[in-house]
Amino acid sequence: METLFYIADLFGVAVFAITGALMAGRKSMDLFGVLVIAIVTALGGGTLRDLILDNHPVSWIRDDTYLIVCTLAAVGTVLWVRVTRPIHETGLLVSDAFGLAVFTVIGTEVALQHQVPVSTALIMGVMTGVAGGVIRDVVCNEIPLIFQKEIYATACLVGSLVFVILRQLGTPHWVDTGVAMLVVLLIRLAAIRWHLGLPRFHLLDRDIP
Amino acid sequence: METLFYIADLFGVAVFAITGALMAGRKSMDLFGVLVIAIVTALGGGTLRDLILDNHPVSWIRDDTYLIVCTLAAVGTVLWVRVTRPIHETGLLVSDAFGLAVFTVIGTEVALQHQVPVSTALIMGVMTGVAGGVIRDVVCNEIPLIFQKEIYATACLVGSLVFVILRQLGTPHWVDTGVAMLVVLLIRLAAIRWHLGLPRFHLLDRDIP
Amino acid sequence: METLFYIADLFGVAVFAITGALMAGRKSMDLFGVLVIAIVTALGGGTLRDLILDNHPVSWIRDDTYLIVCTLAAVGTVLWVRVTRPIHETGLLVSDAFGLAVFTVIGTEVALQHQVPVSTALIMGVMTGVAGGVIRDVVCNEIPLIFQKEIYATACLVGSLVFVILRQLGTPHWVDTGVAMLVVLLIRLAAIRWHLGLPRFHLLDRDIP
Repeated sequence: METLFYIADLFGVAVFAITGALMAGRKSMDLFGVLVIAIVTALGGGTLRDLILDNHPVSWIRDDTYLIVCTLAAVGTVLWVRVTRPIHETGLLVSDAFGLAVFTVIGTEVALQHQVPVSTALIMGVMTGVAGGVIRDVVCNEIPLIFQKEIYATACLVGSLVFVILRQLGTPHWVDTGVAMLVVLLIRLAAIRWHLGLPRFHLLDRDIP
Repeated sequence: METLFYIADLFGVAVFAITGALMAGRKSMDLFGVLVIAIVTALGGGTLRDLILDNHPVSWIRDDTYLIVCTLAAVGTVLWVRVTRPIHETGLLVSDAFGLAVFTVIGTEVALQHQVPVSTALIMGVMTGVAGGVIRDVVCNEIPLIFQKEIYATACLVGSLVFVILRQLGTPHWVDTGVAMLVVLLIRLAAIRWHLGLPRFHLLDRDIP
Repeated sequence: METLFYIADLFGVAVFAITGALMAGRKSMDLFGVLVIAIVTALGGGTLRDLILDNHPVSWIRDDTYLIVCTLAAVGTVLWVRVTRPIHETGLLVSDAFGLAVFTVIGTEVALQHQVPVSTALIMGVMTGVAGGVIRDVVCNEIPLIFQKEIYATACLVGSLVFVILRQLGTPHWVDTGVAMLVVLLIRLAAIRWHLGLPRFHLLDRDIP
């Protein structure tokens, strides 16, 4: 179970690193920039969570597998695009949803281990899932997409809440983990499939004179 | 006194959350984006201060009142604009100045408790006051307003300095707190009223060939 | 030797603060904005490294020389431009390369003291060198230059690697420090002189439908 989860975590890291590398490519960055954006996207959310929770050592500090996976994913993305050209977008979105599910559950669990209130645990679940992507967009000078497009962070929030509830009901570890991940995955895939978005808040100039 | 200060702190959190929600609305973000920007604006400065000072647990981690206040402020802002339309700008600016005053004093005090040099205490006072707004602007892809418009951070700096001096003179707690807050508030209100700004530094292309 | 290194560190802080002040001037910020960007550029990389490594207290927290140097550098830059006008660009670039070399070696060494894997030590060396500039560019709403122009972070990476190797070979402290700094300096100066850049990764719209 532990091993399975570790592998799922590394898979999430790889997928997030790929989305980072692609965004760097859209900004025509050089290879080092591609690597940095890949690492920041993949490890940024977990790092921020660990810093705020004072959860040291930060995961990737002691285990260099994370940095190696990021590097391979970044290099692989560049080679793939150079050689094969088109990216399979649906495949990427589904993989990203899976990574989001893993990260959300890990983040919520780490927070719960620190005996924080439920609201903090939810925030940490969401933060672990989305902060890396937000930092990626900010460094690349874009308004974070996740605050504007289809449901994304909301999937983390619901999944994180399901995890907290199941954990308090005392279900076996594989049940709460599995169900919470499935919830994130299904909400996110439904949002992609039917372009579901939250209502948006438009503030016009006349609203604030 | 403690209770009064806690309430003032929560008031500051609410006001900063509102300014965050309004900025998110200007960028037409969805409701989740509005919530995130509200939280980041309200809690970002204090969080950064606590991380740098190694002052754990970060305030809002153990007390979920902060996150609840942010959420209510964000939801309230959206409903207010939808139902009532215009925002009372002067009211918002004055409230913001009050929040700034509270945050500055709290930040300076937390720093002094860590026995840092005066310059560090001043930086921490200013950072607690302004960093949330800076992060808000950066995430929303704007150059931080506070570095360009009326006097803002300078009010924090002066207030923080007054606090440090009074504290070293050994005045009662309510005096140093009250006077320092008043200083921030008055400087900021004067700056708004008469559009006082610091001189700006224009660097032209011919200055750096 | 310690003293020499401390002075070199402060020199690096001053140079990075100057590049921050110049960028703030390009954005026509006010004097407070100039000071903040100078501080963030000079101290941001080391601060981020210390937070992630849990290396407290963060260097500038206890020793206010750092903040004083930043302030003097920022004020000096504004006065210099106002009075003398042109900045000596080559002088600035060479100084910046020297600061980069110092920061890289310091960052790698701090990381090694925390017994992290080699990959983490390299990242920390690079981060100490470049993160301040990246934060500067992000706050000033620019895509970080270092991911797009001549070789910059790569010089840190190579220098950091040389330092790790020499340290494991057990060379005297002044040798590993000196050689690693020289490597960073020479690569960076060569990159400036002959406009050497890494290949860039251009992702077009047709690559990701």
